[in-house]
Amino acid sequence: MAGETTITVIGNLVDDPELRFTPAGAAVANFRIASTPRTFDRQNNEWKDGDPLFLSCSVWRQAAEHVAESLQRGVRVIVQGRLKQRSYEDREGVRRTVVELDVDEIGPSLKNATAKVTKPGSQQPQQPGQFTTGQPAADPWTAQPHADEAPF
Amino acid sequence: MAGETTITVIGNLVDDPELRFTPAGAAVANFRIASTPRTFDRQNNEWKDGDPLFLSCSVWRQAAEHVAESLQRGVRVIVQGRLKQRSYEDREGVRRTVVELDVDEIGPSLKNATAKVTKPGSQQPQQPGQFTTGQPAADPWTAQPHADEAPF
Amino acid sequence: MAGETTITVIGNLVDDPELRFTPAGAAVANFRIASTPRTFDRQNNEWKDGDPLFLSCSVWRQAAEHVAESLQRGVRVIVQGRLKQRSYEDREGVRRTVVELDVDEIGPSLKNATAKVTKPGSQQPQQPGQFTTGQPAADPWTAQPHADEAPF
Amino acid sequence: MAGETTITVIGNLVDDPELRFTPAGAAVANFRIASTPRTFDRQNNEWKDGDPLFLSCSVWRQAAEHVAESLQRGVRVIVQGRLKQRSYEDREGVRRTVVELDVDEIGPSLKNATAKVTKPGSQQPQQPGQFTTGQPAADPWTAQPHADEAPF
Repeated sequence: MAGETTITVIGNLVDDPELRFTPAGAAVANFRIASTPRTFDRQNNEWKDGDPLFLSCSVWRQAAEHVAESLQRGVRVIVQGRLKQRSYEDREGVRRTVVELDVDEIGPSLKNATAKVTKPGSQQPQQPGQFTTGQPAADPWTAQPHADEAPF
Repeated sequence: MAGETTITVIGNLVDDPELRFTPAGAAVANFRIASTPRTFDRQNNEWKDGDPLFLSCSVWRQAAEHVAESLQRGVRVIVQGRLKQRSYEDREGVRRTVVELDVDEIGPSLKNATAKVTKPGSQQPQQPGQFTTGQPAADPWTAQPHADEAPF
Repeated sequence: MAGETTITVIGNLVDDPELRFTPAGAAVANFRIASTPRTFDRQNNEWKDGDPLFLSCSVWRQAAEHVAESLQRGVRVIVQGRLKQRSYEDREGVRRTVVELDVDEIGPSLKNATAKVTKPGSQQPQQPGQFTTGQPAADPWTAQPHADEAPF
Repeated sequence: MAGETTITVIGNLVDDPELRFTPAGAAVANFRIASTPRTFDRQNNEWKDGDPLFLSCSVWRQAAEHVAESLQRGVRVIVQGRLKQRSYEDREGVRRTVVELDVDEIGPSLKNATAKVTKPGSQQPQQPGQFTTGQPAADPWTAQPHADEAPF
């Protein structure tokens, strides 16, 4: 796919994610996020909330299960995905068009929270904040680049 | 600040984050991420890794402490920040210019991992995957918008 | 304003821009763009158009007048702006919510077209492709950085 | 290609674009842009320029020729592309790593300028601001969607 409209949204989950499975067994998680900008009010010298942007999101496959297990209503998240438009008829027969987000990557924001990250497949219970992989040797980023190739 | 160059990067931490404090007591965490694109090789019908992009990142204040507590080498993250350019002289006296990322938001990706999110200030030990806030009543996103105002 | 959802869209104008003025005399141009992704169909070895994304856009002040003067239906553009959500009642009294784009920067894409750029205030008719400014000396980017400060 | 780091930059051309051709005849245009953020100085109640970000850009094929024909030093542009990192040895034998932009779309900004857009292949000289295509009937965006399918 090329030429899609990619977007990154910072927001809070409005609901708990809803996990479902297609007849073929593929997981999909649906949830809504609200992203609220802030304006600085120079007269009163304080920040004020602007109008929130609500976006319906869907995420597929393994990430869907991880989202359903890890995120709840109220959690602040960073979401990257592709904007999609969809038309449908509501229960009153009114044609409606909505903009939705096909999520490629999502994670809880560490701005106001900590996260204990666990890769499925690691056998041991983790200490808070510890991260282990099932096959650490397979991860190319655990190896430092050679000093003379170091970009910085 | 206006007109800054904002960017979202998906990558893996090359090192553990390094937490330091300014003389005034402000926390800053530094780390590098590597972002590796993939190309589909039509001849061999498989994905191949492209050249990674390495970026030095810094994150400030409370988020810095959360990053240091939550993320380790190898963790896949979503990072949003502003590109900055900095010039300096290295130990050999050679003038160098690097591009770095001033991080605004960061979180562990849920593509290959789960995360147990905790808001500092909540007293109870959490169940895996559970999320609580110290002042749940203060969170506007836990309240559903009225049905007739629902955007979708 | 902070925390807004910024997005860049590549698309084609669906209509000619419509220029209006507020009672206070501020110009605003409205137009819609359609952004069409493409999928590579491996079976037939060809690109196929996906579902387009339609976005209503508005641009203000001097840029609005430049848009109305420079762009027409069909022109491919690059647009950067902030996503906004707006609710209203249509003529049948049905409540609708739309996502729109508050444009910060827009320009015609040079992928399939050339552009003769003119800065208002320059007196002479331009040669094709020539660019002049009213106060060239005021533009800091016409001056090269010193060699020893050159970042590349 | 998937997983590349896409970025949109608003900046001014530092130089005139330099157009070259590969031995196989492919056009490539190289240029640098400078993107300067602004901070609002609350004490003096005015905007101040921040440190500019300089990025080397390259654009290929037909767009390269359009860039060389349309853009000059000083022109403000919107650029979307993919960040790339490249290492090389400079004339003193010092290993250097630079971040560059592989441009996908570029256009002159209409913030402070107008543009007369021309699609190559149209035979008639254009009126200022007019846009014509060689095959107008082939452009799907000149046709309005049906009212009942209208997304907004």
